Amino acid sequence: MDILGRTTPIAIGERTKSKDKKMNSIILQQPGKIVFGINALEKLPEDELILSSEKILFLIAEPVLNLLQPIINQLISIGKIVEVITYNFPGEPTFKQFDTLLAQSVEFNPDCVIGVGGGSVLDSAKLLAAMTGNEQQYADVVGVGLLKKRMKKLICISTTSGTGSEVSPIAILLNEKTEAKSGIVSPALLADAAYIDPILTVGLPPKITAETTMDALCHCIEAYTNKFAHPAVDTYALKGIELISKNLLNAFNDGNDLEARAALALGSMYGGLCLGPVNTHGVHCLSYGLGGKFHISHGLANAILLPAVLRFNLEASPERHAEVAVAMGIANEKDNKATALKGIEKIEELSFACGIPSSLTALGIGENDLPALADIAMNVTRLLKNNPRELTREDAIGIYKTIV
Amino acid sequence: MDILGRTTPIAIGERTKSKDKKMNSIILQQPGKIVFGINALEKLPEDELILSSEKILFLIAEPVLNLLQPIINQLISIGKIVEVITYNFPGEPTFKQFDTLLAQSVEFNPDCVIGVGGGSVLDSAKLLAAMTGNEQQYADVVGVGLLKKRMKKLICISTTSGTGSEVSPIAILLNEKTEAKSGIVSPALLADAAYIDPILTVGLPPKITAETTMDALCHCIEAYTNKFAHPAVDTYALKGIELISKNLLNAFNDGNDLEARAALALGSMYGGLCLGPVNTHGVHCLSYGLGGKFHISHGLANAILLPAVLRFNLEASPERHAEVAVAMGIANEKDNKATALKGIEKIEELSFACGIPSSLTALGIGENDLPALADIAMNVTRLLKNNPRELTREDAIGIYKTIV
Repeated sequence: MDILGRTTPIAIGERTKSKDKKMNSIILQQPGKIVFGINALEKLPEDELILSSEKILFLIAEPVLNLLQPIINQLISIGKIVEVITYNFPGEPTFKQFDTLLAQSVEFNPDCVIGVGGGSVLDSAKLLAAMTGNEQQYADVVGVGLLKKRMKKLICISTTSGTGSEVSPIAILLNEKTEAKSGIVSPALLADAAYIDPILTVGLPPKITAETTMDALCHCIEAYTNKFAHPAVDTYALKGIELISKNLLNAFNDGNDLEARAALALGSMYGGLCLGPVNTHGVHCLSYGLGGKFHISHGLANAILLPAVLRFNLEASPERHAEVAVAMGIANEKDNKATALKGIEKIEELSFACGIPSSLTALGIGENDLPALADIAMNVTRLLKNNPRELTREDAIGIYKTIV
Repeated sequence: MDILGRTTPIAIGERTKSKDKKMNSIILQQPGKIVFGINALEKLPEDELILSSEKILFLIAEPVLNLLQPIINQLISIGKIVEVITYNFPGEPTFKQFDTLLAQSVEFNPDCVIGVGGGSVLDSAKLLAAMTGNEQQYADVVGVGLLKKRMKKLICISTTSGTGSEVSPIAILLNEKTEAKSGIVSPALLADAAYIDPILTVGLPPKITAETTMDALCHCIEAYTNKFAHPAVDTYALKGIELISKNLLNAFNDGNDLEARAALALGSMYGGLCLGPVNTHGVHCLSYGLGGKFHISHGLANAILLPAVLRFNLEASPERHAEVAVAMGIANEKDNKATALKGIEKIEELSFACGIPSSLTALGIGENDLPALADIAMNVTRLLKNNPRELTREDAIGIYKTIV
């Protein structure tokens, strides 16, 4: 007898199982409240999470500190005790850097943590809300599902259209000793509320716009071509691919194009919503070492790797890769493989138009570095298992070689 | 100076405001956890919401009681104190019926309420979780935003693909004195977790399958053609329209077609996700009296009204109505209006194929009843305001007349 009390292992399930594996159960998790759109931030001061808090800790990316000051002043004027930490570490926070932040947070002991920034800031804010006053040590929570609970209320406000961290259950720290990024994945890292206001991205320089957006595009494409792709997530992935590929160049060429900024913000949110239930695959996996060892920005590393990994994966699922291309606006070619290749070429064109280099050499990485990079990639098993085609250490080196 | 400290009311915003009104900010709210897909229910016993509860109240639609029994037994075997109320009222719960349920819930005083059923059961479960031990009286919470908090943990498990209640912040009670439905809308009514397992819908008779699915189709179409439509919700609406119109007949003709059932479950979930941020318009508005006064099932009432209201609304936004048609698989005609009309005809064909009558007369409603129905509709201002075309009492009577 199965869990539903059916005494025969129902013919229904059996009959459709092979066809319908893709509709197997999946857990979709996201902040219960997402305030999305132009001027979303105006709604922040009236958020119940803030109104019900006495002490509020802001962790803010330095470039947007001034933008947030009026809101901070407003909260102080209604009697809130506010502490602001300015985040200005380059790249992902290291264990040691996070220690510094955590010490400050523990001393202030806020009721609510508000992160304002890109992925590194939001990841840090998420971990601060989780770990401040937590009996678990943060070294013990690295991995999937090890972090048991979050201690403080948490609001994430994204200032780039890329990371998706504001809606995902994931945070990344950099282990400065091993030069490897350490993923912490737990429902406890989902914010209580996310604010996604495209106005906050208007000031982003073209280079950062391009790199962060390419990261969001990777989230969508890696989810859609994922071994564990799921129809309930495909909807986000395809719409994200469409929005991003249509609007990236407009935002790159004119940072003030609010229509393009808003579309990218929505596409990036969709990319973020892919991360919890399905997540990324070989692209993000192979980029870990570029970030950890060579301190190449996350988005840039992913952007360079994306076409190379897709070319490698293509044979595993030509149809899915062709659908990605069609979502990018490519017309159907004679077969799926041809369509998919056109899509990959379009990604390369987009990158080229945005000044993203197409080779690792441009970043100072040579053939000699590839084995070490592949070793790091092979350790990212939580993403490696998602790749639609088996990807060995030799394959990884081979993929890197195509873009040296 | 605006809230972001910009001293000039930025040229950016001004320049794009007219074009980009649709990307204005919107609040997306949903359960932070949705377990979707075939055999989703198998994950229920390990849900942290349950594990952390001592006393669990199930409110279960009578026809699925047996299906749930093994799970209930399992929870009892791990030491949970479980009370089961069988829900068997016809249609929406009346104030008086809800009183009975609430008295039982107050006496048991659960930590967690689990609703298992269609819209009426889930709405009741949501209100039980909100009102058990709440100092607010439920007569005081009818309306938008009046319910301040929910007292108990809440899990919603849908057994139809229609209502969307499992992911929405809305509950409906029937005021037996005024014969009007009373909407209670509050973030506090969002479940902590929703379980959507298409297997639970396999046993639904064809008639109920058709009616509930048409309700879900209305949620999607009314959101997409809504005066307050928003790109972040359009994604759900269009995908829902596509899934439902492709799969309804398969599920109607073969209730065991799990692939179709799963697609409808996903489409219905998307319909539910439209409800909180955008909601329905004239269709649901005009159907209130059919349910309240004539006790016609909610889905059936909406299904009959859908083509009539769309024909009335069409001129307000031919493009949006054409996009609905295209999502239903209609090819583009010579202009948007023609395309849209083909879509409306396709809805009528679907209804006909599912045995849904096309006229009110078939339900025993005549011309004399129309003014009273219009009066009820005019009171549903929270939905009336969403209609893309102004809809007066006379318009309402006119629309009813087209289907008498």
